[in-house]
Amino acid sequence: MILHGYFRSSASWRVRIALALKGLAAEQRFHHLRKGEQRAPDYLALNPQGLVPALELDGDVSLTQSLAIIEYLEESHPTPALLPGDPVQRARIRAFAQVIACDVHPIQNLKILARLRALDHDDAVVNEWARTTIAEGLEACEALISKEKGPYCFGDTPTLADVCLIPQLGNAERFGVDIAWPRIQEAAAACAALPAFQQAAPDQQPDAE
Amino acid sequence: MILHGYFRSSASWRVRIALALKGLAAEQRFHHLRKGEQRAPDYLALNPQGLVPALELDGDVSLTQSLAIIEYLEESHPTPALLPGDPVQRARIRAFAQVIACDVHPIQNLKILARLRALDHDDAVVNEWARTTIAEGLEACEALISKEKGPYCFGDTPTLADVCLIPQLGNAERFGVDIAWPRIQEAAAACAALPAFQQAAPDQQPDAE
Repeated sequence: MILHGYFRSSASWRVRIALALKGLAAEQRFHHLRKGEQRAPDYLALNPQGLVPALELDGDVSLTQSLAIIEYLEESHPTPALLPGDPVQRARIRAFAQVIACDVHPIQNLKILARLRALDHDDAVVNEWARTTIAEGLEACEALISKEKGPYCFGDTPTLADVCLIPQLGNAERFGVDIAWPRIQEAAAACAALPAFQQAAPDQQPDAE
Repeated sequence: MILHGYFRSSASWRVRIALALKGLAAEQRFHHLRKGEQRAPDYLALNPQGLVPALELDGDVSLTQSLAIIEYLEESHPTPALLPGDPVQRARIRAFAQVIACDVHPIQNLKILARLRALDHDDAVVNEWARTTIAEGLEACEALISKEKGPYCFGDTPTLADVCLIPQLGNAERFGVDIAWPRIQEAAAACAALPAFQQAAPDQQPDAE
């Protein structure tokens, strides 16, 4: 397997965590987003969206979209599980992940912030856009796990929810969002103690700047 | 089951299609998004994001996020299947769905367009933002299915990909995006012939205006 990513991309970061939690090795290739390398023709052949990540499998197959890639890893390498067996709990964990992957991250990523700058908005407006998006999303995330037993988002093992939460917290920190939510803090601390999360962090990647 | 939605919400529309394809009945409750009814306290108790849809199950359980709800329906009512058995093909179909659910719809929905208006952008700028977002996303969607056998997005039965495509095409039409992509057109025509897609359309809902 070859994982195409970028150290700071939070969608790539999710896949790195999932691979590490499952003990799977993938060769990494890096595409510098600020230099536009994800728009190169040979990369667009792997991912017509021109986004990272993409996961190349043997036999000329390329998977895209971080949550689809992680569901594939879950189905092809079920242990340790990132989703439990109960359908309702699976749905609740996926919903938490999708709050981040659908309603937070895409609204505050590099591409959208660049579109705001192209509409002549300055750093103050752009950063406030990102902060508001992240804070509203994390507020909802906290509500979704407020009655769940810790220390992770959903119980005593990391799930897809934690895999999505930690990179989003990385973005929250970059934009100065105060992480004041108790269950989120508890989950973040539990994840920080795990080697899989440590190894997947942006500053541990070969392309980190 | 009670489906909380809004006739024009494309995320609610996805769930309506999935329920209809599986022959499942749900009581429908409607929350008028332009009137802000999704922010009422009793609804926020069901969905702390204040978004539609939410699916209330028996026993005080509420599921949120359309793709998580549809995966739940798929797991609890597997026939007819919206995802095939092969993990790679499942991943490709989920990725197509996520292009729409993560990278297109949330960037052009009512909430984000209202934020752009609050930044003093006029209709021309706001509509161009939506059109560009939708056209780029559908361009990528076409590439993801260009080599797939039709008539649906992925083969001869409707899948999660079609469930997401059709509501997004509804938005494309509203914003004047030219649907010139041949495989997308083929899938849209195949879906339009199915009663499940017909019944789920916004203009067939009791709250349609």
